Amino acid sequence: MIKEDQTRWLWYPGDFEIRQGLLQNFSREERSYDWPAYWNMDDCHKNVKFKRYYDLADETSFVVHAVGIGYAEVNGKKYPFGEKIHCASGKNKVRVFVGNTEGLPAMYIEGEVIKSDIGWAASNFIEELPAGWSALYLTQDRDPNKVYFATETVQAVSVAECQGGVLIDYGRAIFGTIAIKKLNTAKPVTICYGESDAEALDIEMCYYKEENAVADTVPRKRAFRYLFIPELTPEQVEIDAIHEFIPLENQASFHSDNALMNKIWDISVETFTLCSGLFFLDGIKRDRWIWSGDAYQSYFINQYLFFDEDINTRTMLALRGQNEIKQHMNTIVDYSILWIIAVENHYMMSGNVEFLKQIYPKMKSLMDYLMAQTDELGFIYGREKDWIFIDWSEMDKDGTLAAEQVLLLKAYNAMIVCGSIVGENTAEYSQKYTVLEKNLMTYFWDEEKGAFIDSYQSGNRHVTRHANIFAVLFDFVDETKADKILKNVLLNDEITQITTPYFKYYEQDALCKLGQTQTVYQIICDYWGGMVEQNAVTFWEEYIPEETGNDVYEMYGDPFGKSLCHAWGASPIYLIGRYFAGISPTSPGYATFLIEPQLACFSELESTFPVKNGSVTLKKNKDQLIVRSTKEGGTLKLNGEAFELAANQEYTFELANELAENLS
Amino acid sequence: MIKEDQTRWLWYPGDFEIRQGLLQNFSREERSYDWPAYWNMDDCHKNVKFKRYYDLADETSFVVHAVGIGYAEVNGKKYPFGEKIHCASGKNKVRVFVGNTEGLPAMYIEGEVIKSDIGWAASNFIEELPAGWSALYLTQDRDPNKVYFATETVQAVSVAECQGGVLIDYGRAIFGTIAIKKLNTAKPVTICYGESDAEALDIEMCYYKEENAVADTVPRKRAFRYLFIPELTPEQVEIDAIHEFIPLENQASFHSDNALMNKIWDISVETFTLCSGLFFLDGIKRDRWIWSGDAYQSYFINQYLFFDEDINTRTMLALRGQNEIKQHMNTIVDYSILWIIAVENHYMMSGNVEFLKQIYPKMKSLMDYLMAQTDELGFIYGREKDWIFIDWSEMDKDGTLAAEQVLLLKAYNAMIVCGSIVGENTAEYSQKYTVLEKNLMTYFWDEEKGAFIDSYQSGNRHVTRHANIFAVLFDFVDETKADKILKNVLLNDEITQITTPYFKYYEQDALCKLGQTQTVYQIICDYWGGMVEQNAVTFWEEYIPEETGNDVYEMYGDPFGKSLCHAWGASPIYLIGRYFAGISPTSPGYATFLIEPQLACFSELESTFPVKNGSVTLKKNKDQLIVRSTKEGGTLKLNGEAFELAANQEYTFELANELAENLS
Repeated sequence: MIKEDQTRWLWYPGDFEIRQGLLQNFSREERSYDWPAYWNMDDCHKNVKFKRYYDLADETSFVVHAVGIGYAEVNGKKYPFGEKIHCASGKNKVRVFVGNTEGLPAMYIEGEVIKSDIGWAASNFIEELPAGWSALYLTQDRDPNKVYFATETVQAVSVAECQGGVLIDYGRAIFGTIAIKKLNTAKPVTICYGESDAEALDIEMCYYKEENAVADTVPRKRAFRYLFIPELTPEQVEIDAIHEFIPLENQASFHSDNALMNKIWDISVETFTLCSGLFFLDGIKRDRWIWSGDAYQSYFINQYLFFDEDINTRTMLALRGQNEIKQHMNTIVDYSILWIIAVENHYMMSGNVEFLKQIYPKMKSLMDYLMAQTDELGFIYGREKDWIFIDWSEMDKDGTLAAEQVLLLKAYNAMIVCGSIVGENTAEYSQKYTVLEKNLMTYFWDEEKGAFIDSYQSGNRHVTRHANIFAVLFDFVDETKADKILKNVLLNDEITQITTPYFKYYEQDALCKLGQTQTVYQIICDYWGGMVEQNAVTFWEEYIPEETGNDVYEMYGDPFGKSLCHAWGASPIYLIGRYFAGISPTSPGYATFLIEPQLACFSELESTFPVKNGSVTLKKNKDQLIVRSTKEGGTLKLNGEAFELAANQEYTFELANELAENLS
Repeated sequence: MIKEDQTRWLWYPGDFEIRQGLLQNFSREERSYDWPAYWNMDDCHKNVKFKRYYDLADETSFVVHAVGIGYAEVNGKKYPFGEKIHCASGKNKVRVFVGNTEGLPAMYIEGEVIKSDIGWAASNFIEELPAGWSALYLTQDRDPNKVYFATETVQAVSVAECQGGVLIDYGRAIFGTIAIKKLNTAKPVTICYGESDAEALDIEMCYYKEENAVADTVPRKRAFRYLFIPELTPEQVEIDAIHEFIPLENQASFHSDNALMNKIWDISVETFTLCSGLFFLDGIKRDRWIWSGDAYQSYFINQYLFFDEDINTRTMLALRGQNEIKQHMNTIVDYSILWIIAVENHYMMSGNVEFLKQIYPKMKSLMDYLMAQTDELGFIYGREKDWIFIDWSEMDKDGTLAAEQVLLLKAYNAMIVCGSIVGENTAEYSQKYTVLEKNLMTYFWDEEKGAFIDSYQSGNRHVTRHANIFAVLFDFVDETKADKILKNVLLNDEITQITTPYFKYYEQDALCKLGQTQTVYQIICDYWGGMVEQNAVTFWEEYIPEETGNDVYEMYGDPFGKSLCHAWGASPIYLIGRYFAGISPTSPGYATFLIEPQLACFSELESTFPVKNGSVTLKKNKDQLIVRSTKEGGTLKLNGEAFELAANQEYTFELANELAENLS
């Protein structure tokens, strides 16, 4: 925890994330050109005013530093930055004006009493709010316009002659740069990068290439495992990889009697760690953009691995941008809705009311933006240039679409929950919720098919998995309907299979929720296990078991279009933590939480998962389960019985006969 | 005229002006600190997409250059910038994506057929509009993120020992930097700047100071006439002033038998030229901000001097910012309204429908913003944080204020005129106009006082000049009421005098309009003549005849707070052109125009003033007036008679007996 009186860099709240989000979304690179994201992107404010009143017992002095131009002002008198300012005892009004045309305006005040700690207001000359800050920028030498990565030097695990050049393998995925330690050649070389050896060896089609490299070349940050340098021999070259990362603490562990599962866990952790920087990225090679849909899944994985609240909030603030909404998030209607839903989940995870107060006005304006495109039945429709995505899958998108309505319904729910916490009137959302829920069931639930249909307007009564999955996940169906969905949709091979890993995530989630952990266990072993068999060091954007050879790297019509380290590939972390270990908060910030393990698939297992300010450890050894939580408020549910767990106490249960008995 | 197929830099329309406007408003400097403007300021978009379809007779090639990152795309295939791209004959879709996190994203295409000329669309991923460009950025080497000033080296007219140092006088106002040609001293020096010698000699209180200057120091752009270097002798130093400017063509000339008037004209031209850069600045030393009220007056002066349409549009676009309105212009409600009125005037001056089409949506949204703060009588009121300025003068600001209503009425009129031209429905404005006009007369016109009162709500029936002046200027009063206003207000010494030069401008304008040219002639001779007598080389922000010594430099409680080169000081140019020469457009772009000279004050005079694509020359010699227009469409009105003037023909009139006779 950072103390309130700790000096830190301050800025207009949200601006750091918006500015860095812009830079992040501009960092995509492909075959010698840059590829800035193709949607309208906000930037931070360019001039900001900070204000604070002090009632001083004694005179004091301070020095204001800033990134940008401007001045400090005490009781109306102006001073340049960097100058020691003396302040008399008594009441003082201190203001700091900072402008920065090239980046984030920020300030840092050195002083004993007057300093840039908690208590400053920041204004964009329209709204005055508590100033923004980040735990990553606490000292004067940390410019919040720069990202300070920790680095790790990685040596090659193999340097081999190949195709008339040198192929270097670092044995793991690197997201960083390189340090050339030896380059014995007179002419500059071309360094080809690859997530796979096939990509690095393809001089034409590899994504990244450093041309005309010489000994002191330091290329930009890139993702790779392999380097290939044509027309060179292993003796001529020695290159270290410099992996760059923002340190995150892994708060979870998993070890079982199933070696494949253990490997899947480890690779999931590696994958997710790589994709977690200032923000949740979709993948480290491609796109490196902040996608709201991908981020949504990452928030859940984070909850069971790092339990890092800051990366969640940074990602949410970057995605949402400034107050004025000009376009849906990443242009996608469902991504806007998922963002709202995610805020509620973050609140349940963190219990952070301060953040909710900061973000609620932006939830509200986004909800207004969404409500403006609903019809007389309360159904949301797409407007020109809106992308009604849901999934790449074939869907009957004639008229309004069921899956969007289910999401919207959940978003109203999120508004009601979050609005109530911050003391806002949520009556409008309740009323909209009621109408939409009724109409969703009336128009989209097909009793005969026992499932939600995509479109009621087309007359086709076409069923896909998507709306049904969301309805299960968000608890919009009773047990009877849930059973029907399970039978008629999720376990029905005649319903088109989910083909994207993005939606596979939601599908596994729903299957687990409906008690199909055994099925999901098998899917994890098969699907993720399939990648392990292919010697994956990170999990891919997509895995198609039928593909062989270099075909596995192809995606979007590009021979190396597939990202081999993709955040959503790490979903086993969430599935294991949420359903196999069975941990979830039942009140905000895990004041109370449930542990409902489903460990039948494991004979032996030892795993720890984070909860807010604590952790829960489960050890299973055949018929014995040992449970320990470092935090008060946990309830263990085992075979229908509930046990309240005291903090830091070890409880042992017998699992024989599917019955549990408290032996402790 | 720039040909349509001339290659040029392209950007999202308005963004160049918004970006440079931001930089301009951040350029203020005062006593070693920077002073960015204190309102919310927009920046340009950070990623932009350009698009154009070509149907090519033959294959061709082109090279895309950009300020920023991104790529070019032909029929879906992407290429890096700077690479020669070949394009087959037939239909081709060319797109260019440019992102720039530190400034204006812009592109320039070299090519025979495919090039960055007129015809490209630019998109911010929400709106697609014809791309923006400027005649100042036509060649590849001109980065539209930089301003390329022409320079003029100015040598000192005197270098004198003074107060133990060297005082250098350049004999004129400089807006630029310096070149140190000789500095024979071992230790760095302090260079103090002054618009006046008093300011330069005041080491403590001068606005700008270059500390620790050495021989190769090149200070930032500043305004000065004098430099003072303490502890140095004239033998030790030689410094040239490097004046920086954006060339503007003076299209007017004036010479009369009154030497003082001639001097006032020349100093007005000098003053206005100095304050006209990329934008109209209020002053060159202080504030250097783009103020809508100051700019409003500059548009009119420009019309009679440079007739430069580009500086008008650049200033208007910079002031208005991006689509979303968060605050009134410079925080001032009347400044927003004046901006709308100015657009109509610009259209009357230029006849430029293209610009009107570009700007109309931004007029409309600003008008919506204004209308949202009107009451049930149609009166506009100030909201929290809105600045109801009008003038620094004492006014009865209880409730809604008369002057604001008169401005709003004129703004409705501007919306009706401009909206009709671009084919928009303006019925709402007509309706609002009718209501407001009626209520203005009912509530604010005081028949007994024969004048508009400030406030009808206070019950004080207090009369100031302001609303009355605006009502005259905008033709909202009939002859009877106008006469009353002249007698009861303008020529009534009991009504508080206008004290600010800003409002003096409107007052002279109204007096002239009511035929008081004789009075105004005397005011010009006295007020501006007073500054001439004080050896002014440019006209000041304010002149108070009673002040003597260094007191003349004081303003806003600061000993050198007064700007000695202030745009509005140049208003004699407008008054002479508009009323004495009497030239004004009667249809857009001077398709028809009026020449209604009021030259009784001059015995001899020769003057030329611009009209759109032409000029009008008047020569008076005692009783003879010679008139010549280079453009068709002029009508001369002399003593109640009208004469249509053919182009390029000289007409001579006898002025004897106040009657005119066409002798040509």
